[in-house]
Amino acid sequence: MNDTLKLTALLTKLAALLGDRFSLSESIRQHHGEEMTHYDICLPDAVAFPESTHEVSQIVKLCHEYEIPVIPYGAGTALEGHFLATHGGITLDFSNMNSITRLNTQDMDCTVEAGVTRHQLNQHIRDTGLFFPVDPGANATLGGMAATRASGTNAVRYGTMRENVICLKAVMADGTIITTSSRAKKSAAGYDLTRLLVGSEGTLGVITEITLRLYGIPEAMSAAVCPFESLEGAVNTVVDVIQMGIPIARIELVDVNFIRIINRFSDLNYPQEPTLFMEFHGSTASVQEQAEMVEEIAKSHGGHAFQWATRTEDRTKLWQARHDGFLSVRAAFPGKDFWITDVCVPLSRLAECIDETRKDIDKAGIIAPLVGHVGDGNFHLTIPYDKDDPQDVAHIEQINTRLVTRAIEMDGTCTGEHGIGLGKKKYMALEHGPALDIMKTIKTALDPKNILNPGKIFDL
Amino acid sequence: MNDTLKLTALLTKLAALLGDRFSLSESIRQHHGEEMTHYDICLPDAVAFPESTHEVSQIVKLCHEYEIPVIPYGAGTALEGHFLATHGGITLDFSNMNSITRLNTQDMDCTVEAGVTRHQLNQHIRDTGLFFPVDPGANATLGGMAATRASGTNAVRYGTMRENVICLKAVMADGTIITTSSRAKKSAAGYDLTRLLVGSEGTLGVITEITLRLYGIPEAMSAAVCPFESLEGAVNTVVDVIQMGIPIARIELVDVNFIRIINRFSDLNYPQEPTLFMEFHGSTASVQEQAEMVEEIAKSHGGHAFQWATRTEDRTKLWQARHDGFLSVRAAFPGKDFWITDVCVPLSRLAECIDETRKDIDKAGIIAPLVGHVGDGNFHLTIPYDKDDPQDVAHIEQINTRLVTRAIEMDGTCTGEHGIGLGKKKYMALEHGPALDIMKTIKTALDPKNILNPGKIFDL
Repeated sequence: MNDTLKLTALLTKLAALLGDRFSLSESIRQHHGEEMTHYDICLPDAVAFPESTHEVSQIVKLCHEYEIPVIPYGAGTALEGHFLATHGGITLDFSNMNSITRLNTQDMDCTVEAGVTRHQLNQHIRDTGLFFPVDPGANATLGGMAATRASGTNAVRYGTMRENVICLKAVMADGTIITTSSRAKKSAAGYDLTRLLVGSEGTLGVITEITLRLYGIPEAMSAAVCPFESLEGAVNTVVDVIQMGIPIARIELVDVNFIRIINRFSDLNYPQEPTLFMEFHGSTASVQEQAEMVEEIAKSHGGHAFQWATRTEDRTKLWQARHDGFLSVRAAFPGKDFWITDVCVPLSRLAECIDETRKDIDKAGIIAPLVGHVGDGNFHLTIPYDKDDPQDVAHIEQINTRLVTRAIEMDGTCTGEHGIGLGKKKYMALEHGPALDIMKTIKTALDPKNILNPGKIFDL
Repeated sequence: MNDTLKLTALLTKLAALLGDRFSLSESIRQHHGEEMTHYDICLPDAVAFPESTHEVSQIVKLCHEYEIPVIPYGAGTALEGHFLATHGGITLDFSNMNSITRLNTQDMDCTVEAGVTRHQLNQHIRDTGLFFPVDPGANATLGGMAATRASGTNAVRYGTMRENVICLKAVMADGTIITTSSRAKKSAAGYDLTRLLVGSEGTLGVITEITLRLYGIPEAMSAAVCPFESLEGAVNTVVDVIQMGIPIARIELVDVNFIRIINRFSDLNYPQEPTLFMEFHGSTASVQEQAEMVEEIAKSHGGHAFQWATRTEDRTKLWQARHDGFLSVRAAFPGKDFWITDVCVPLSRLAECIDETRKDIDKAGIIAPLVGHVGDGNFHLTIPYDKDDPQDVAHIEQINTRLVTRAIEMDGTCTGEHGIGLGKKKYMALEHGPALDIMKTIKTALDPKNILNPGKIFDL
């Protein structure tokens, strides 16, 4: 059977299986083939809306039989082309799989279907006194977050999806359903399939259910903003805070460019200096103690005008401004496209990495506001450019390649939290060396027909 | 070439490569083929003492060529037959690879060769104000600890080897040397090979270097012992402490049988009741606050006679008694062999699991002292028996199988920290279902000749 015949046969079978939860419509395919960043639109052949793991298994089994790609799709908030159907195929939209199927307050864990978003989960469990901390900027689905090993501002204290996924249910390339481990807090029973699937971007299996760690909502929370005379002073504050083992919940760096943009967008008047946004969680006494220690450290590095926010509404306003970062930049550069970088380096190299990067940016004559989850050594530039201008694209590509190379030379990574997708494939060999071949061997063994989100992370 | 010829050819080449760091001597092979628990002795064909990752690579390359097994060996403290040469082959003894090759106090991490022991590391870094927390009972090597995903009493606060290995250098089946990731605190760049190798028990690659997270030695530490009227009260105290998010550093359960044995062995006089051993780390104020909260919780569950130890020597004495647990049991049952169980269940099922297990043990008419890392839901029975008595062996096997089945039915695991090795292979299918086939597929892809510690974790 040739490829067109295979596809036609598959589409017929899927339509029979799923009825109106299967669509060939141009507009629906369009919606699933377009990213919010700089990637070109790329449509799947059809979109399926499964309702259960069993149904996902049936779909994958058929795709396996006909050798047609399967692409999982959550909230569409990926930033590196993860869900673009570069090889055609069937997009699995998880919006119908949005139930929280189990909640255990004693074990402080829950199980959700892959289409549940992080806001939905936190809304659902609020009355239990528990919360789920991992917070990428967007209201992503937990399936997508697991698949890309997402993190965000809370990771410095609570870890990333790597630390907070207990186990997964997943459909493998031939349709087999597996559960990656038990719910025990630790285990030494064989290979860590949970961690292998977390961050595999849909290329090793389709994640359908996620069991997550939850945390008690802290007795006390307090936030603070502190401007610094220099960016280096802000970064060194972070290094000292982490080294002293202060369990800070969030510590985010925002550079002068970003502060100006945030001020304008959110009608605020933060001093126009490199600034740390911070949050402290714990008992009342411990929050007080942490905050005092950090204020002292900040002062010794040129931090001044510490501004506290202990009331919920003030904290919310403060973090809203930070979380609106991307929106603010978009508003500041109307009509532009945006390229978002994502390197992460060891803390000891962070000040140097940011400094060299800023020099490079300045030399290139572009404006690129910087924000960073600096407690983890991770920072982002949001670079406005014009994706239809080949010269502009080439220029930004070069800047990004220099940035990634710099980070890798400092024993860091090309991506702290956004994933590889399409955009960072070219850096995989530089970052991983011969380990990249090991990844490819695993991919080929688990998905010999290369139907699971093909062309992502690396080419075979 | 037949198998005997292959082995002879390999031994000749290895002798030429390694000189006096290669041994065929009966006593050296004996030393590397005997475990401290109930497994039968099982000798390798030869023992190599490599001095570098490069040399490990050369050895593995030759073993690959001649299709002869390679078995990594650390301190010989494994409990499930991990290093027994059931298929013959070459044991790699890492005692010559015992350098701490890098220490970065700013990043709070270090890199060690696989033969460095945990005591050696902590001794080495003591003056920096940092420590490495993972503490299985024995003074294991960090290579062995990574390979078995070890943990111990501190895991409730600091995590296991899963959380504390940043990256690894490993030699793969064909001799290729890989580094599993950068030193960045987080990364979303491809498959998590670090976590795949941690816990793989030498079956996917030979770990030669480990990069580890370190922690600041807390400003204050305080320990406590608290006896309870009932075992259930002790367990429920643990559940409440964890649920309230109190960052307790250690919380260990010891049952009445064990308390009696410890008292006798270490000349102590703890009340003969189920007892929690605890430790608190943090600032002076936070340790005080944690301890007061825990004392209150304990009281509400029938805990009494809280006994504090804030002086270093008192703390050391307290934990020495706990860590001498296995030695104490050995002394209490001279001439006996010992079978150590290792299940781990979700906290919400822990009281029930311990209770049912105790009833089963009582019914079987045996004495089996219990200790548990109960903050993680993990507990051990140390069962004295006679390994030369087939009836006794069958009896203990049945008890263990009932225990493991009970734990797995409670969504737990057959091993919290000791690993699968030889002893728990028979439970892998029950625990993992179809996921076991995924593990086998990965093994076969990465080690097609099955030379890396064959016969461990599962049979192919």
